Amino acid sequence: MSGLYFECVPNFSEGCRPEVWERLAERARASGARVLGAEGDCEHHRAVVTFTGGEEAIYQAVLAMADEALASIDLRRHRGLHPRMGAVDVVPVVPLGPTPMEAAVALAQRIGEGLARELGIPVYLYGEATANPAHRRLADARRGGFEGLLERMRHDPPDFGPAVPHPTAGATAVGARRILIAFNVYLATDDMGVARLIARKVRESSGGLPGVQALAMDTRERGRVQVSMNLVNYPSTPLPQVFARIRDLAAELGVEVAESELVGLMPLQALLDTAREALRLPALKPEQVIEHAIARWPWEK
Amino acid sequence: MSGLYFECVPNFSEGCRPEVWERLAERARASGARVLGAEGDCEHHRAVVTFTGGEEAIYQAVLAMADEALASIDLRRHRGLHPRMGAVDVVPVVPLGPTPMEAAVALAQRIGEGLARELGIPVYLYGEATANPAHRRLADARRGGFEGLLERMRHDPPDFGPAVPHPTAGATAVGARRILIAFNVYLATDDMGVARLIARKVRESSGGLPGVQALAMDTRERGRVQVSMNLVNYPSTPLPQVFARIRDLAAELGVEVAESELVGLMPLQALLDTAREALRLPALKPEQVIEHAIARWPWEK
Repeated sequence: MSGLYFECVPNFSEGCRPEVWERLAERARASGARVLGAEGDCEHHRAVVTFTGGEEAIYQAVLAMADEALASIDLRRHRGLHPRMGAVDVVPVVPLGPTPMEAAVALAQRIGEGLARELGIPVYLYGEATANPAHRRLADARRGGFEGLLERMRHDPPDFGPAVPHPTAGATAVGARRILIAFNVYLATDDMGVARLIARKVRESSGGLPGVQALAMDTRERGRVQVSMNLVNYPSTPLPQVFARIRDLAAELGVEVAESELVGLMPLQALLDTAREALRLPALKPEQVIEHAIARWPWEK
Repeated sequence: MSGLYFECVPNFSEGCRPEVWERLAERARASGARVLGAEGDCEHHRAVVTFTGGEEAIYQAVLAMADEALASIDLRRHRGLHPRMGAVDVVPVVPLGPTPMEAAVALAQRIGEGLARELGIPVYLYGEATANPAHRRLADARRGGFEGLLERMRHDPPDFGPAVPHPTAGATAVGARRILIAFNVYLATDDMGVARLIARKVRESSGGLPGVQALAMDTRERGRVQVSMNLVNYPSTPLPQVFARIRDLAAELGVEVAESELVGLMPLQALLDTAREALRLPALKPEQVIEHAIARWPWEK
């Protein structure tokens, strides 16, 4: 017998006060969710809390965290590098283990409805949770940000809640998506042109690899530049393939990869893909990893 | 609160009758152990059952399986490629998770004592379970095999049990060791000399890599030769390092690696080591693997 199980990684528009992230994480814990991490970035003025749980725990956790965010964050007095639309900016729901995407879609819709009804927050659905092609991509679902919200809502009403922004908390994007791998590659050069060229060549939107979103990031104060990526479809475009492509493109330009960086978590499959490729082990199976063979999973009842 | 947890991978001298492996596995299950696999090889006339469990389940499983082996296997009518000393030939006990090696040593000694007392099987301790340097290596602990046992026992008595072989079941080596990675690399050549040269260069005993045991295997009927290895100290000599060494040695001889093969299981650490190397991700931590972050472990009470 198997239950539904999810990861949820809401983004909040508060990156400078760790005590706020801690209160947010505490509300998730108190709702029965399992908190895996809470971290913020003052420059981007943004925090992410990662937690997992069953349907009810995730729902209760998001509602409680949103309640906390309304009390602690006022977007009218908020500046940060990151584009944002709400105090609770984005709530992605990710199905784990054998949980089907449809269950994550249903949970995202329930969360959206709850945020609107209980807290008066307008909610736009995005990703797999919406049938509106103009809202599938997160960047589209929150286009215009907090400042453009009043104008936008006149012609593009939210899926749930009032057609005017919450005065201090704006609006929230709630969606369902696959696990995403946030993977950055540092190049041993201070030439931003190299990073921009490579980002353009690997990103899907300019004809690169399926499911790869890429940006050149100016990290020259560390003596190197960065290609910053989200891999949103790791089954089609495995992590080692993305790495090899960047390494080869850089080599053509006479530049070496200095180091990579994984932000947050990745699925075991990305590790298996890497070992299959690097060790020429095409037949490698997850059951051959001892820990995987003996673990018990939270979706097993 | 954390309990002790072990893997046990006993080898039995019966590779041609799957019904015997199935009975052996069933005895392990009935003793409360978790059976991960049971497989045999008729050419080597040998089977391996892999199972995990707490102290009591492992002890009871080995005793019950040995009882089954005594009823089903008669070494006086046994021929096979594999060197063997007993019907229950080798019983390795491996500590998993936070379980210390000392606990595996204590369990191996208890199993040895039990096999001798309950079933009259002479037992030699090996690996971490013995202080006798002449028995540390498994090959030394069973030197001479079944046929040489009577002569050997006169000057090299067992740790437990009678100083004469069991008439049909010989003697058993029981030991404690770390997880071992059985990893084979196929080379795209039919020149056995290449496999022999590379095996010699990587194996510890001829000055190669620490904890690497390597043999050239004649798999020319598959159009390629094999370097067959046991990596007995994967923390000191990571799997990707062994693979890279073989690939580089082969390249020097103008030969390519065709494919690799993992026999049985490997620890997550070997995958992490591989990704750290292949993706230049030195900071990668096990907690960054989603499945690892959410799993519950059998040693957690």
